[in-house]
Amino acid sequence: MALCDIGFVGLGVMGKSLTLNLADNGYQVAAFDLDQGKVEGVLAQDRLENKTDATRVQGCESFVDLLAKVKAPRTIVLSVPAGAPVDSVCRKLIEAGIGPDDTVVDTGNSLWSDTVRREKMYDGLFMFFSTAVSGGEQGARFGPSLMPSGDRRAWERIKPMWQAIAAKVDPKTGKPIERAEPGNPVTEGEPCAEYIGPNGAGHYVKMVHNGIEYADMQLICEAYHVMRDALQMSPKEIAAVFREWNQGVLDSYLIEISAEVLEEMDSATDAPLVDVILDRAGQKGTGMWTAMSSLELASPAPTITAAVYARAMSALKSERVHAACILLGPQGEKPSEAEKAATIAQLHDALYCSKICAYAQGFQLMASAARANGWTLDFAAIAKIWRAGCIIRAVFLQKITDAYVRNEDLANLLLDPFFVDEIATHQMNWRKAIANATVLGIPCGAFSSALAYYDSYRLETLPANLLQGQRDYFGAHTFERTDAPAGEMYHVEWGTAERAMHKMG
Amino acid sequence: MALCDIGFVGLGVMGKSLTLNLADNGYQVAAFDLDQGKVEGVLAQDRLENKTDATRVQGCESFVDLLAKVKAPRTIVLSVPAGAPVDSVCRKLIEAGIGPDDTVVDTGNSLWSDTVRREKMYDGLFMFFSTAVSGGEQGARFGPSLMPSGDRRAWERIKPMWQAIAAKVDPKTGKPIERAEPGNPVTEGEPCAEYIGPNGAGHYVKMVHNGIEYADMQLICEAYHVMRDALQMSPKEIAAVFREWNQGVLDSYLIEISAEVLEEMDSATDAPLVDVILDRAGQKGTGMWTAMSSLELASPAPTITAAVYARAMSALKSERVHAACILLGPQGEKPSEAEKAATIAQLHDALYCSKICAYAQGFQLMASAARANGWTLDFAAIAKIWRAGCIIRAVFLQKITDAYVRNEDLANLLLDPFFVDEIATHQMNWRKAIANATVLGIPCGAFSSALAYYDSYRLETLPANLLQGQRDYFGAHTFERTDAPAGEMYHVEWGTAERAMHKMG
Repeated sequence: MALCDIGFVGLGVMGKSLTLNLADNGYQVAAFDLDQGKVEGVLAQDRLENKTDATRVQGCESFVDLLAKVKAPRTIVLSVPAGAPVDSVCRKLIEAGIGPDDTVVDTGNSLWSDTVRREKMYDGLFMFFSTAVSGGEQGARFGPSLMPSGDRRAWERIKPMWQAIAAKVDPKTGKPIERAEPGNPVTEGEPCAEYIGPNGAGHYVKMVHNGIEYADMQLICEAYHVMRDALQMSPKEIAAVFREWNQGVLDSYLIEISAEVLEEMDSATDAPLVDVILDRAGQKGTGMWTAMSSLELASPAPTITAAVYARAMSALKSERVHAACILLGPQGEKPSEAEKAATIAQLHDALYCSKICAYAQGFQLMASAARANGWTLDFAAIAKIWRAGCIIRAVFLQKITDAYVRNEDLANLLLDPFFVDEIATHQMNWRKAIANATVLGIPCGAFSSALAYYDSYRLETLPANLLQGQRDYFGAHTFERTDAPAGEMYHVEWGTAERAMHKMG
Repeated sequence: MALCDIGFVGLGVMGKSLTLNLADNGYQVAAFDLDQGKVEGVLAQDRLENKTDATRVQGCESFVDLLAKVKAPRTIVLSVPAGAPVDSVCRKLIEAGIGPDDTVVDTGNSLWSDTVRREKMYDGLFMFFSTAVSGGEQGARFGPSLMPSGDRRAWERIKPMWQAIAAKVDPKTGKPIERAEPGNPVTEGEPCAEYIGPNGAGHYVKMVHNGIEYADMQLICEAYHVMRDALQMSPKEIAAVFREWNQGVLDSYLIEISAEVLEEMDSATDAPLVDVILDRAGQKGTGMWTAMSSLELASPAPTITAAVYARAMSALKSERVHAACILLGPQGEKPSEAEKAATIAQLHDALYCSKICAYAQGFQLMASAARANGWTLDFAAIAKIWRAGCIIRAVFLQKITDAYVRNEDLANLLLDPFFVDEIATHQMNWRKAIANATVLGIPCGAFSSALAYYDSYRLETLPANLLQGQRDYFGAHTFERTDAPAGEMYHVEWGTAERAMHKMG
């Protein structure tokens, strides 16, 4: 039997799907899992889907067997839970004889800083490489968005396989080429797999992708909330609005599935399903990590953070049920049809402008992390690989790619001429939508944090001068003067009658 | 010479001030610093201030000398930089012969989780106790707010000293008794020093104090910003508004010093000082820690986080100067006198309601941390010790004490009858202030995050039902049903024509 092109450890949902995707694309895969039932499962699925060639996937019985079945220099992919299991498998591979020329690729949801640590830890034993995978089970099976990072030599070896299995974009439309047929992979179009950077860069970029995803979802929910409660529209009516929006600048996977969710009826109650779903949101931590990283790097990402807090607030269901009996809000009246149409138009623009700000925050955050970690990130390429295969895929991402192609050193996405114009054109409606929701009592923390981001970024002077005065008053924290060189610090002796000002250094 | 009541290690600004404060209150202090010049400095200051008794403070030459000069069981206070120096001094004290009956009190700005770790680490060697100190140099010298935590036996010993040196509140007015005279300490009134809880509780509570302080300051800055830019008022006019507000529900140290800062003229330029101070804010990390902890504990604190982000945004000065030439905002017109008066009234209520929400977030966060760490926190006592000596001191804190005295298990400060009424009365102005700033282009991230907090907390149903639908659609994350028991998870097979719903467990 010929040696395999690549080996897999871990054949859960993601590992199995990636294995079959590689097989569909003509690669021989050696597949191993500590649970031999899962190995059998992949082989059975392979036989079922692949009627012509029964040897696309080879089952392995041990780590030694796995290494024996892959051609050197070996590429061994891990699809195991993030955390301790990754290091445990790496140790087993070392015991089984993996060598310095071989590559281990971690495709789990690892925290980026663990990836940084691991690259150092395994240096000399093998090349530790990582690839963050977006798109869930369907994506892994028929075309994920892949964010690989680590040693460039490893990337050169893996690249043909990763670009073969990745989601593809039609270069003419900038839209995903969707096809989910076993044995018939998409081979045309631009692949959503590009080298991101050294060590933890790929997992960091994937983390920010998820943070943006949180923001995207919350923004849609706020628009829905105003339509549902202030405009008193039915889920079906709101779905129709989303379907219309999906034809324009908001065209995206998340808008599309929002419409589908809103159209769904619950057979048990004959009510719209959305009304039967409990409003208590879960979260797995990547949004929180993104928000925490933005705080640590002092790179404002208030809209991503607002989305994380909105989920946390939704989880306080029983407290809210209690509070609803006690805390008052304003009483709105049912709007006229003309007001309704105007509000819907405003919400469209609020969603669009807020979305631009959420992406600007995410890209700034990646830029800050790149500076802090010594990475060189290609933002045009990152936006490109998010155009298909992942949850935030949207036509909009092409505009971001275009912006960074125009100017790879763009200080902020908001400063790209296209986005400057878009926000200039749509901002009054954005402001009106927030003002309206504010007066009507519909919470819009994501919309309004995005606007505060825009309005504070575009102002030469913020009220932090008063804040610096306060800090110097109570804590002698010193301040800079507008008419003195940056870094020259001053302090006023506030407690004294003279209030003399001193240059502190 | 008689043995001392207490020993000090570290005679920087804070250690020196606390030493002299203890001496003023009749305690004998043994004072040590690795820098003997600092020991001499404290003794010289003591001789200068204290004309009748030259032996209130005894200088020490070594750790051994320090331990020899303090009566057993010994209380040794550390006033050294947070981090490694604390452990380094603890090791020196162990070498010098400190015993299991002695207490070491860390008064630095330690991260609360370090305090938790240290209590365990030094168990059996000595009692590791902590006391977070608020109020800066002036507070430490004449009356700080103290947040002690650790072993209760240690507290019983330290209590008389801590309550003697702490800031005092007039129980009739709930206001600080202010006196800053060497040798004439305030001995009447209620002391701002109460036992907080086990291990890191004191430092955690102090951290949240600082987070609230960030929010308080940013809220004041947003009100100032609207008055300065939209109402085109001079710093002097704005100071007059703050002075008026300081007579009512907003009566607080931070409003008072804001007025003083705004009244200050710069002698070099003859302009208002605030216009000469550069709008680039610094931060030392405690606000960031508070925000990160709220994310980790899923306890929403969006207004504290908005304040941290506002400082980060202010720091991007050169980017903003550039962006100001490119990004458009709305053009407001100068308002009429009547509009101006109405806007000022709205801002007052916006500041007041937002402040209530920021404190509610801070107290919820402390409650979440208490649950996570097994602490029992007395929120009435915490609000009480913040009434004087610390930066956020305000008449308002008495209302918070009252709320927790009425109901120690209050689920949220917003639900206390007093605050329910206050927000019910003032909320329309709050909403109008935000709507107005939104349309005029003045960023108000702290105001609007506070309102989003209020509006989402008071709603029985949030749009997280749609969000759960989205999550189940793309990631099979499952959802709960409104008509099924909590924890029963459902999943729809979205990809199929039937879209069957399954109970998952």
